[in-house]
Amino acid sequence: MRIAIDAMGGDNAPDEIIAGVLESMELLGENDELILVGPQDVIESQLPPVKSHKGAVRVVHAPDVISMDETPVESLRKKRKSSIAVIAKMAKLNQVDAVISAGNTGASVAAFQMRMRNLSGVNRPGIAVVFPTFEGPVTICDVGANIVCKPLNLYQYGVMAMIYSKHLHGIENPRVGLMSIGQEDAKGNEVVKKARELMKSDPNMNFVGNIEGRDIFNGICDIAVCDGFVGNVILKLTEGLVDGLFKAIKHELMTEKLKLAMEFKPVITRIYRKYDYNVYGGALLLGINGTALICHGSSKSRTIKNAISASKSFYTEKINDKIVEYLSQTSVRTDDESR
Amino acid sequence: MRIAIDAMGGDNAPDEIIAGVLESMELLGENDELILVGPQDVIESQLPPVKSHKGAVRVVHAPDVISMDETPVESLRKKRKSSIAVIAKMAKLNQVDAVISAGNTGASVAAFQMRMRNLSGVNRPGIAVVFPTFEGPVTICDVGANIVCKPLNLYQYGVMAMIYSKHLHGIENPRVGLMSIGQEDAKGNEVVKKARELMKSDPNMNFVGNIEGRDIFNGICDIAVCDGFVGNVILKLTEGLVDGLFKAIKHELMTEKLKLAMEFKPVITRIYRKYDYNVYGGALLLGINGTALICHGSSKSRTIKNAISASKSFYTEKINDKIVEYLSQTSVRTDDESR
Repeated sequence: MRIAIDAMGGDNAPDEIIAGVLESMELLGENDELILVGPQDVIESQLPPVKSHKGAVRVVHAPDVISMDETPVESLRKKRKSSIAVIAKMAKLNQVDAVISAGNTGASVAAFQMRMRNLSGVNRPGIAVVFPTFEGPVTICDVGANIVCKPLNLYQYGVMAMIYSKHLHGIENPRVGLMSIGQEDAKGNEVVKKARELMKSDPNMNFVGNIEGRDIFNGICDIAVCDGFVGNVILKLTEGLVDGLFKAIKHELMTEKLKLAMEFKPVITRIYRKYDYNVYGGALLLGINGTALICHGSSKSRTIKNAISASKSFYTEKINDKIVEYLSQTSVRTDDESR
Repeated sequence: MRIAIDAMGGDNAPDEIIAGVLESMELLGENDELILVGPQDVIESQLPPVKSHKGAVRVVHAPDVISMDETPVESLRKKRKSSIAVIAKMAKLNQVDAVISAGNTGASVAAFQMRMRNLSGVNRPGIAVVFPTFEGPVTICDVGANIVCKPLNLYQYGVMAMIYSKHLHGIENPRVGLMSIGQEDAKGNEVVKKARELMKSDPNMNFVGNIEGRDIFNGICDIAVCDGFVGNVILKLTEGLVDGLFKAIKHELMTEKLKLAMEFKPVITRIYRKYDYNVYGGALLLGINGTALICHGSSKSRTIKNAISASKSFYTEKINDKIVEYLSQTSVRTDDESR
């Protein structure tokens, strides 16, 4: 398997990206190859001169860099030789089997969608993020690829996340919830209400109905389906709240008992590690014709290693084939052609 | 001031509601009166036979009870003598100056909107909730009154929350943020983009631009404006995540060191108290022609007491007059008549 990695993506690039690639050597089989994409001189100056890497790690030159705060579409148009544009093109030309970027999310999603195209039967791709909760992993889709969703998009997010969760998290019959503002049928906006009907009508989906924000953390679902606006707010709110809460705990501990704070520190560290979504190696762009992972801008080498591992599983388990097969056989159809 | 309280609202009614009313006696001035509304026999059997209460606490009979999970509109139609319907009618007839309910949120909002009508110049009321964050109180509006918003609704939520925050939290020039999925102008759906233009065009609003989910907790804004769907997800997600995280911490502490867990317990209690949104006594329905507070279904006596206190401040500070005045003078207009 050939995996292209955007060497210039994220706040810690290229150091942490390259470190992540080197740490991943142990994951590679005989036919696996990691391809670092970015300015050749920059990457090579940081690659240790170890002969044994030569076989499995390769560098592809891409001189341009898209920064984290550039406008996605415009930056792609201007910087055709950016690492993001180049890995997307390599995927299109079937020169690689998977692409990974911790760079500008908007630019990555736009480039992958434009070059790799959608899977057969999928109307709009969605970004799936896994929240490691106290009750187990919960997959949330979409967290930002598709801001304005049609009911069919939401249904398909449910299908794709279900197949992903089943085969990559080993959850036999994942429970799919639809994010709304109350559990009753009548709750939600028109799109949610129609999506609910589509999901209910699929006998092969273990649909648990509407869920509310709190239900992500209380163990009643394995999948939370929402549009990309709501999903993005959920993702970032969770980050901000966890940080804020630990800051508050630290503050309380420090102001009174330094000893207690010291004792509590390893507990916090353990919780951070246990509930760290970096273990899932970033977010999968589901519904794209290929394997594409989008990592957090703050990714460290460990995240990149996990992303490489996740892309291998996704590819090996043939998740995309399973999605195409499911959607070709589903009885769920919609009258709405403008999807 | 006359304040009507739904005695049958919430999971702990009527016990905690009545207890909250009794605890509030110390807040009352000479001309203040608390009116408990619900089945007379039930309430009176729980009211202690203390003569001194007679002057300030009164009971108004309302035989019907709307339960927490009933459909709002239908339940109001069927149960015209429910405590919620009766307090809303009392407000309409100017028999009371404020209404408070910890009951069925949907039914309360519907009844208050229907009976009390909107403030002059306000197109749609919004529910404002205060999050006590590490960096200070942040007011979020709307958290569920208005699921599908027009740009003008979002602008008006900003105005109302700004006036509320200034006069009730003492924040001189509240910073207003618009919830979106990125800070750039181009981010967000069409409604958010148009709302952004309206907010930017108001020279009297301290508008800080788009905010993301994480920004609620990092001190860059005092107000977060969003539609009721997104706001409701934020509210419930926050509840669920805080509970889940403390559960995780407790679990980690218990599995290793019981002693550490015991030492940490008061810290958790202190944090819960410090960041407890019950101190704000529930959510204000902003934009209604009157003073209406909606409390959490799990409200305890303390919440009710705080709600009574909040309703007094809201009324005394003449927040509604200030909102009407601001909106009558704003230069911000919209072409869209279908608001």
